[in-house]
Amino acid sequence: MSEVQFERVAFLGFGLIGSSLARAMRRHGLAGHIAVGDISEEAVATTQALGLADSAGTDLVQAVAGADLVIICAPVGAYAEIGHSIAPHLKPGAILTDVGSVKGSVIRDLSGLVPAGVHFVPGHPIAGTERSGPQHGFAELFEGRWAILTPPEGTDPAAVERVRALWRGVGSTVAEMDADHHDLVLAVTSHVPHLIAYTIVGTAVDLEESLKSEVVKFSASGFRDFTRIAASDPIFWRDVFLNNRDAVLEMLQRFTEDLAQLQRAIRRGEGEFLHDRFARARTIRRGVIDAKQA
Amino acid sequence: MSEVQFERVAFLGFGLIGSSLARAMRRHGLAGHIAVGDISEEAVATTQALGLADSAGTDLVQAVAGADLVIICAPVGAYAEIGHSIAPHLKPGAILTDVGSVKGSVIRDLSGLVPAGVHFVPGHPIAGTERSGPQHGFAELFEGRWAILTPPEGTDPAAVERVRALWRGVGSTVAEMDADHHDLVLAVTSHVPHLIAYTIVGTAVDLEESLKSEVVKFSASGFRDFTRIAASDPIFWRDVFLNNRDAVLEMLQRFTEDLAQLQRAIRRGEGEFLHDRFARARTIRRGVIDAKQA
Repeated sequence: MSEVQFERVAFLGFGLIGSSLARAMRRHGLAGHIAVGDISEEAVATTQALGLADSAGTDLVQAVAGADLVIICAPVGAYAEIGHSIAPHLKPGAILTDVGSVKGSVIRDLSGLVPAGVHFVPGHPIAGTERSGPQHGFAELFEGRWAILTPPEGTDPAAVERVRALWRGVGSTVAEMDADHHDLVLAVTSHVPHLIAYTIVGTAVDLEESLKSEVVKFSASGFRDFTRIAASDPIFWRDVFLNNRDAVLEMLQRFTEDLAQLQRAIRRGEGEFLHDRFARARTIRRGVIDAKQA
Repeated sequence: MSEVQFERVAFLGFGLIGSSLARAMRRHGLAGHIAVGDISEEAVATTQALGLADSAGTDLVQAVAGADLVIICAPVGAYAEIGHSIAPHLKPGAILTDVGSVKGSVIRDLSGLVPAGVHFVPGHPIAGTERSGPQHGFAELFEGRWAILTPPEGTDPAAVERVRALWRGVGSTVAEMDADHHDLVLAVTSHVPHLIAYTIVGTAVDLEESLKSEVVKFSASGFRDFTRIAASDPIFWRDVFLNNRDAVLEMLQRFTEDLAQLQRAIRRGEGEFLHDRFARARTIRRGVIDAKQA
């Protein structure tokens, strides 16, 4: 067990990611008191029933009182409102961080609200599953995964280092980058793939009933991987797309151009072109395996 | 161990699917002699080294000699040529079947070539992995999976029943349908999803080098599932798209319309629309889990 890094930690929003981080911090002895604030009574009840926190309630202000570390784990569309309600109650010297999948909008929504003497260190663990809710979290979620921090210029280096240490403490490797760059990388690796998965599964929903039931029945041929991705939380993803609009639209544009080119090749029977494209795509898989992210 | 169903079985093409089926037939005692014909010397050498067959060589005609059951397990683009070379050498009373992912083109390419007295029963197991080659096959691949048969009108029911029994013998459940319907269902569940996965991974390949390396590094966020799908055999997939063109283009058209609609909603900030679409897609996942295909 490591040294306690934060005497009192507040989680604002407590779903899969928040509850996994709380479990991991407990397991590694990184937190003293764990306080949970979640506006969902159901999430609070689950948290209490499973004993996932030392205190839990629907009042966010109460949760952050006296906290040395406040971690926002809510959909990014809720940050502005959360920021407005908690900012005046943050303890001087506290660190405010988050796990949101978009970083530019998070900095836009929170930077102006954070009081002097509180350190804001935006973060994003590259980990998750398609499940939602505190009951589905697990302490090993972040092991061997990346956590990205995007501290704005002028952030206190000591505060950044403490957040780095937190992620290392739960088994992650930490990278640091500019928020805009983060949002572009994630648009490619996560946001556009999820939008595409939602789309193709949605296309199947619209099929006539007889065909749809067979699509489900015979899904073990590529489609089921998309249904897994498309099972993710709709509010979470709505907020991602609304808040990372420019990067998502830019990458989506490239994708649709590439798809149109393949579509044209199929229509014209251009086998060699198709083969070359497919063979090129295969090389990336090798990179993913070599990077131990497979 | 079950009763031997076929004294002599010939596999034409021996990759992941063929070698898995051979392994399963052996394990369940369904085949006497297993002969392999594959034009790839490498595949033949691997087959011999691993002892996956009783005889193996690059001569397809030699492989089918005396076979009671001939199973084509090659990319569907090769069927016409294979049919021309083996048809005159098929044993009277033999059953010719296959595992191809497209069924309309297979019937088009083979029906006219099959000699009188030989029974042609097209088939397609809904199973596979992204790996290729006989070394990656395994006997359990078909357990709990579907196998679809698409016998043309007038096919001998006894021959169909023997192919049904074969798939049941290796653990599959058998469905029967019209070849065109099969091709439409598979366009949705398999062909379009693979094309989309190839496309988005290809889009990533085209990114500037610095961004691309980060896409690989942070792929554990949706993208890596696409890289897995896009690691499949390029020749196999080229042949699928060239041979199931109409159904693929039809479903691709629906998909691109749906994607354009979501793209527009993101551009215009229509959160409610996005949420509704995502929530609808989620219901299909439930169906896949209920159908035990997850």
